[in-house]
Amino acid sequence: MEIAMIQDSIVAFNELEAVYLDRGMFFGDGVYEVLRSYDGKIFALEEHLARLSHSLAEIGIDGVDIDAVRRRVEESFRAAGIANAKIYFHITRGSAMRSHAWNETLKPNFFLTVTELEDDSQVKAKGISVSTYPDLRWKRCDIKSLNLLPNVLARQDAEKKGCSEAILVDEAGFITEGAASAFFAVLEKAIRTAPLRANILPSITRKFAIEAARNTGVAVVEKSLTPQEAAVADELFITVTTKDIVPVVSFDDKTIGDGKPGRYTKLLMEQFRTFTLY
Amino acid sequence: MEIAMIQDSIVAFNELEAVYLDRGMFFGDGVYEVLRSYDGKIFALEEHLARLSHSLAEIGIDGVDIDAVRRRVEESFRAAGIANAKIYFHITRGSAMRSHAWNETLKPNFFLTVTELEDDSQVKAKGISVSTYPDLRWKRCDIKSLNLLPNVLARQDAEKKGCSEAILVDEAGFITEGAASAFFAVLEKAIRTAPLRANILPSITRKFAIEAARNTGVAVVEKSLTPQEAAVADELFITVTTKDIVPVVSFDDKTIGDGKPGRYTKLLMEQFRTFTLY
Repeated sequence: MEIAMIQDSIVAFNELEAVYLDRGMFFGDGVYEVLRSYDGKIFALEEHLARLSHSLAEIGIDGVDIDAVRRRVEESFRAAGIANAKIYFHITRGSAMRSHAWNETLKPNFFLTVTELEDDSQVKAKGISVSTYPDLRWKRCDIKSLNLLPNVLARQDAEKKGCSEAILVDEAGFITEGAASAFFAVLEKAIRTAPLRANILPSITRKFAIEAARNTGVAVVEKSLTPQEAAVADELFITVTTKDIVPVVSFDDKTIGDGKPGRYTKLLMEQFRTFTLY
Repeated sequence: MEIAMIQDSIVAFNELEAVYLDRGMFFGDGVYEVLRSYDGKIFALEEHLARLSHSLAEIGIDGVDIDAVRRRVEESFRAAGIANAKIYFHITRGSAMRSHAWNETLKPNFFLTVTELEDDSQVKAKGISVSTYPDLRWKRCDIKSLNLLPNVLARQDAEKKGCSEAILVDEAGFITEGAASAFFAVLEKAIRTAPLRANILPSITRKFAIEAARNTGVAVVEKSLTPQEAAVADELFITVTTKDIVPVVSFDDKTIGDGKPGRYTKLLMEQFRTFTLY
């Protein structure tokens, strides 16, 4: 008889709950988004849904109704009633007997959580330390997929070093992005960040940070930089959905500027704040 | 209140079953093995457990008792009572609130299935067709992790082309391996396959195929080959745990040899069969 074993318990294979046969588990065959709300309002929902559509299309998960996803996000956000919430959701290709190739008739699985955001005011006021790690990821990082083991290993390495984020460096010696953030430098009064390619996630917060820079008359240069350039930059910061712009004050143990959030970074943080007030 | 949504149903976050918070789902943060039995006997269990140990160590999942894993595999195999069985299992880092970095106190999750192997006698007698696909995988394919989306996309592409396996080609233009198999050519009376590096899984069946070649006096050359070389090889075959050696008779629509399994391939298949008779 075909069976399964969960921890130490044997169950009949055909009595397994669908979640145990989720292709998200077997293959990371799914995509996800993380959103946040500011004071009761979900930020940039349409941008996240547009990126979700891209991710789904690129891995051939068809038939997801984006309007239904929007309704689920809004309904669960209302049900939670958390003003400053983190909304995570993933959509996997569905549940089936394990087989690499998929059957087009599979129904996607949806899972979402709404949780409290931690207060980040201290982190944003003081800035964070980051450390570098090799970019071991696959060649389609523009897809926000559940294949995140390299990101996990990078972040763990950073935390072991007392840092809050790992900055990924590719084989050519260039910074791509953070393990779960976009990476920016301020050099010669301009904002510098890597251009969007297949090796980088099209970060929503990156887009708004660039908009903030343009609104305040700060030049933006989309050109990759090396860890050596980053270590001597005037300012550094990362962008991440849950905390928007976060100053970086230490890079691989080298103090950036005077070790405090820089003036351009603070200017962009203030400008970004205006985006969240609508 | 913190909540989750599963498909359309809202549940309290703190009432979620652990499986929904499995890091295997959030990040593919786990490793797996696939074994098979021949006529009631599990093949190469110790080799698979040794590779499992390597995979676990490389991603820092500590504290897994390999003897306990062996017992679970053997117990479930006995319980299923299937003579020619496929045994799949994965071990993930555990269940926790989603966060890239992990807490060292997490308890790993174990999941296993024992299912019937399909009869592969026709496939092995006739040989299969394969097609090439870019190797989009991460840089640590020596770890048998749950990050398998690139493999899934490759295999689906192959099936769309009427092929049974995708052969992955790296950016330098060399074949690494199949989406879920090792890849071999017969060229100038020698077996040729890519050397084991971080870009290749140390396939157990590859090891036995090489042993089979040596036992029968066939030279083995561990050197990468290009799709151009493969297309004009005397013979091609793949190795995969569930079917051991499978002849390849068509490569990107080019017929290999006379379109039938070649004599070296058949010799190795016979020799391999002797390994399974103990």
